[in-house]
Amino acid sequence: MTHTQVTLLQIDNYGPWTVTPSPRREVDLQTLQSRLYADLSQLVGNREGYVFFSRFDNMIAVTNGLSMADHSLIQESVRNRYPVTISMSVAVDGSPAEALETATSQLQDEGSAQDAERTEVLRGDPLPEVERTGQDVQLAHFDVDNATEKYTDQLNEFDTFIEIEQGYAELMQYMRRAHDGLSFFVGGDNVIAVCPKMDAEEYADAIDHVEDAVGVELKVGVGRDRTAQGAGMAAKHALETCREAGTAVEMNL
Amino acid sequence: MTHTQVTLLQIDNYGPWTVTPSPRREVDLQTLQSRLYADLSQLVGNREGYVFFSRFDNMIAVTNGLSMADHSLIQESVRNRYPVTISMSVAVDGSPAEALETATSQLQDEGSAQDAERTEVLRGDPLPEVERTGQDVQLAHFDVDNATEKYTDQLNEFDTFIEIEQGYAELMQYMRRAHDGLSFFVGGDNVIAVCPKMDAEEYADAIDHVEDAVGVELKVGVGRDRTAQGAGMAAKHALETCREAGTAVEMNL
Amino acid sequence: MTHTQVTLLQIDNYGPWTVTPSPRREVDLQTLQSRLYADLSQLVGNREGYVFFSRFDNMIAVTNGLSMADHSLIQESVRNRYPVTISMSVAVDGSPAEALETATSQLQDEGSAQDAERTEVLRGDPLPEVERTGQDVQLAHFDVDNATEKYTDQLNEFDTFIEIEQGYAELMQYMRRAHDGLSFFVGGDNVIAVCPKMDAEEYADAIDHVEDAVGVELKVGVGRDRTAQGAGMAAKHALETCREAGTAVEMNL
Amino acid sequence: MTHTQVTLLQIDNYGPWTVTPSPRREVDLQTLQSRLYADLSQLVGNREGYVFFSRFDNMIAVTNGLSMADHSLIQESVRNRYPVTISMSVAVDGSPAEALETATSQLQDEGSAQDAERTEVLRGDPLPEVERTGQDVQLAHFDVDNATEKYTDQLNEFDTFIEIEQGYAELMQYMRRAHDGLSFFVGGDNVIAVCPKMDAEEYADAIDHVEDAVGVELKVGVGRDRTAQGAGMAAKHALETCREAGTAVEMNL
Repeated sequence: MTHTQVTLLQIDNYGPWTVTPSPRREVDLQTLQSRLYADLSQLVGNREGYVFFSRFDNMIAVTNGLSMADHSLIQESVRNRYPVTISMSVAVDGSPAEALETATSQLQDEGSAQDAERTEVLRGDPLPEVERTGQDVQLAHFDVDNATEKYTDQLNEFDTFIEIEQGYAELMQYMRRAHDGLSFFVGGDNVIAVCPKMDAEEYADAIDHVEDAVGVELKVGVGRDRTAQGAGMAAKHALETCREAGTAVEMNL
Repeated sequence: MTHTQVTLLQIDNYGPWTVTPSPRREVDLQTLQSRLYADLSQLVGNREGYVFFSRFDNMIAVTNGLSMADHSLIQESVRNRYPVTISMSVAVDGSPAEALETATSQLQDEGSAQDAERTEVLRGDPLPEVERTGQDVQLAHFDVDNATEKYTDQLNEFDTFIEIEQGYAELMQYMRRAHDGLSFFVGGDNVIAVCPKMDAEEYADAIDHVEDAVGVELKVGVGRDRTAQGAGMAAKHALETCREAGTAVEMNL
Repeated sequence: MTHTQVTLLQIDNYGPWTVTPSPRREVDLQTLQSRLYADLSQLVGNREGYVFFSRFDNMIAVTNGLSMADHSLIQESVRNRYPVTISMSVAVDGSPAEALETATSQLQDEGSAQDAERTEVLRGDPLPEVERTGQDVQLAHFDVDNATEKYTDQLNEFDTFIEIEQGYAELMQYMRRAHDGLSFFVGGDNVIAVCPKMDAEEYADAIDHVEDAVGVELKVGVGRDRTAQGAGMAAKHALETCREAGTAVEMNL
Repeated sequence: MTHTQVTLLQIDNYGPWTVTPSPRREVDLQTLQSRLYADLSQLVGNREGYVFFSRFDNMIAVTNGLSMADHSLIQESVRNRYPVTISMSVAVDGSPAEALETATSQLQDEGSAQDAERTEVLRGDPLPEVERTGQDVQLAHFDVDNATEKYTDQLNEFDTFIEIEQGYAELMQYMRRAHDGLSFFVGGDNVIAVCPKMDAEEYADAIDHVEDAVGVELKVGVGRDRTAQGAGMAAKHALETCREAGTAVEMNL
C-alpha cells in the first residue's frame, strides 16, 4: 500500500490582490506565478518532493519526507521574497485524492481563500518518520506516443496543444474516478500521475480508455519509492524502456 | 479588422535533451521551463507583447510592435542564459489561427522540432510599422463566475481543478472552431483568448456554449488596442466592470 | 562632451525591513537582492541601459534613452513582484559624479532612506529626446592583465580576491577624484567605469596610477555611444583588441 | 576550536565563454551571474550553508553539513539549468584561510580555470558526520555604525559607496592577515566574516584598526554553531543587541 503525503499550497487572498487597487499588469502576474512555482519546485525538490503547478494560485505537492518544520521554512522563504504569502496544509493517505481531500478541508476550515485575515495557515500531520517505507509513493509518467512526428511537426501548434490537452483532460478524469489518482500536465506531452498502488493492467486500461475516448495514444512508465523524487526518477527510466522496447506500460517498482 | 502578429517559440530539440545522457531530474526541468517562460514573458512584455506558456516547450505569443531585430535579441538573451536555445517564427493575419498556421509552417519547413541540427531558426514577416493601427489586437479575458465560492472553498483542490480544466478545454475548442481564436489558461480561473474581430453577442454565445456543455459559468471582458498589453489591460478593466455590474460580457474597444 | 543620464535606485526602508520583526534569514536576503538586481538589469537593459549592483540596496544606473514613464513602469514591475518597493531619481550631466550628486540630492530631499513613509519616490529630468546625440555616454571596460595566470591559477581564491579588490578600490578612488568617473566591479576581474569625455592618455595615467599604488596591472577598452549598451559593447570590442594586440588602452569612439 | 568546511565554486572556463564567438551582452552576463549566485545561495542555504558571491565567477561557501553527494547534486542542478558548468572543491580546517588554500590547490591541480577540458571537477573531504560539533563555525556580522545617517542620507551614493568599500577593503585585509579570516561584503553596509575561534577583544581590535586606518566605525555581532546558518543567525541577533545596547561587540556563542 502507498502512503502519499500530499500538501496543498495556496497563495493567500490572491484573486483580490491581483486587482488591487486596479488590475495589475498580466506580464508581472505571469512572471510572479511562474517564478513562485519555480522556487517552490526547488524548495520542495531539494527535499525530494515534487510540486505541480496545476492552477498556479493553488498548487499540489507530494511531500513525503518533509516535516512541518520544513514546510514552515518554505513558508518563511516565500514571505521573505515575494509580495504574497502562502498557506499550506498536509495530509497522508493510501488514496492520493483522499489525502488531498483532507488537506483541502483543513485549509477551508480556517477560512476562505479570499479572506484577507486568513494568511500563512500551516496545518496537517506528516507521515511519521518511523512509519515511512520504500513503497510510499507511486508515480506514473505518461507521454504521448510519437507526439513530435504525429502532432508537433504536422499540425499548427494550437491544434497540437488541443490534442495534448484533450488527452490530458480525459486521463485526469479517468484516473480520478477509477483510482483516486491525481494527474498533472508537466509540459510538452508529459503527464505525471500520483497514484495509489496500481498494477500494469490497470495502467493499460487507462491508456486504452484515453485512446478510445479521444484518439490520443499514451505510454507510461511507473515507479515506486520512499519519495516523489525517487519514484519519479524510476518512472522516467521505465518510460525510457517503453521507448526502446516499443511497449506501452513498464513498471519499475 | 484585427491584425494579430503571432510568434511561435519552440525550444530546440528539447525532448531529446531532457533524457540525454539519461533522464534529467524533473524538478530541474520544471524550474528551467517555468523560468524560461517568466523571462520570455518579461522580454516580450517589456515590448508590450504577451507570451502564453501553453506546452512550455512550445509557447505562443502575441507580438504586435516587435520587429525581427527585437526577436533576434530575445533569442540571443536566451542563448546567453540557458542551456537550451529557441527558434521563433512570426506571422500576421486577421485570423489568429491562420497567423499561427503560417508561423508553424515556416518553422516546420526548416526541420523537425527534434532535429539537432535545426537550431535558432528565426523567420517571418512582422506587421510593417506603417500598417499598424489601434485596432490590431483583440483580447478577451474570461474567468469563472464565483469560482472561489463555488469551487475553491468547497471542493478538494483537484476536483476544483477538474472543473476549471473542463471549462477551459470546452472554451478552447469552441473558440478555435467557431472563430479561429486561440485561448490560453493563465492560472487561477482565468483564460485569455486571442480573438479576431468579434462582437458581444458572439462572446455571449461562447459563454452559453460552455455552460451548456460542462456546466461552468464564465464571464468575459474584451479589449482592443495596438498591442497585446493595451488590449489585455482594457479587457481586464472590462472584466472588473462585469464583476461590479453583475454582467457576463463587457466590451472595452 | 558627454551627457550621462544617471539613475539612483534605492530600496525603500530596506535596513529596517531586513530585521523586522526579527532578523530575516541571510540566504533569503541574498537571493532577494541578487534577483532584484538581475531583474532591474533586464528591465533597464531591455531599454539599452546598464545597472550596477554597487551596494545592492542602492544601485546606480546609466539610463540614457529611458523616459520617466519607463522608470515608472520599472517601479511598478518591482512592486508587483517583490516584498519591497524602490525609489528612483534621475539626473543628467557632463560629469557622471555631478549627475549622481543631483540625483541623490533629489531623493534625500524627499526623506531618509529609512523613512517608512517615503516610498516609491520618482523624480528627475531625463535628457530630452531632441538633445540626445551619439556621443552622450562614454564607458571604459577595464580588466586585470593575465588575471587567471597570475592570480586565479596561483593564489588561494581569497588572496586573488584581495588583489582584485585592491586594484578596484584604487581605481574607483582615482577615477572619482581625477575625473568624476564612477567605476563599478562587475565580476571576475572586470570593472566598468562611467566616464566624462576622456582621452587615451588619461586612461593610461589611470592604469599607471593603479599599478604604482597597488601593483595590479590593468588594461582598458573604451567606447562611446548614444546609450550605455552601445558604449559598453564598443568598449568590450576595444578590450578584445587590447588582448589581441597586447596593448593597454584602446579607444573605440 | 572551529572546523570550517569551505567550498570553492568556480564557473568552468568562464572568461573565454563570455567573449566567444564575440563579447556577450553585459546585461545578460550580469543576469546570469547574479541568478546563478541566487540559485547557489538557495541550494546551499537549503542545507544550512552560506555562499558568498565574492567575484561571481569564483564563489566561496561555508558548507558544514553538506556531503559530497549534496555537492554533486548542486553541480547537476547547475548543469541542467545554465549554459555554464561549475567545479567545486571542499576542505576543512581550524583556519578558514587554510581550508580555502587546500580547496583551491585541489582545484588548481586539476588544471587552469580557463582550461576548456577541465569541467565539473568535484574534489575534497568534508568533515565526517561523527566529528561535527556545535562549535564548528564562527561567523561575525559587521555593519557600519549609523551608515544611513552618516553616509546614505548625506553623501552622493558613490561617495557613500567609496566609504563602505574602504571600510570593507581594510577589514578584509586585517582579518586575513591577523586571523586567517575570510570577510565578504554582503550588501548595504554589511560584511560577514568567516572566522577561526576569536574572542571579543580581538574583534574590538579589528574594529579599532579599521577606524584608525580609514575612519569607518564598525560594530559586530558574533555567533557560533554547527552550521553557517546557525552561526549567522546567532551573529545577527548579537548585532541587534549591539544596536539596542549601543555596544560595539556582542558575542552570542
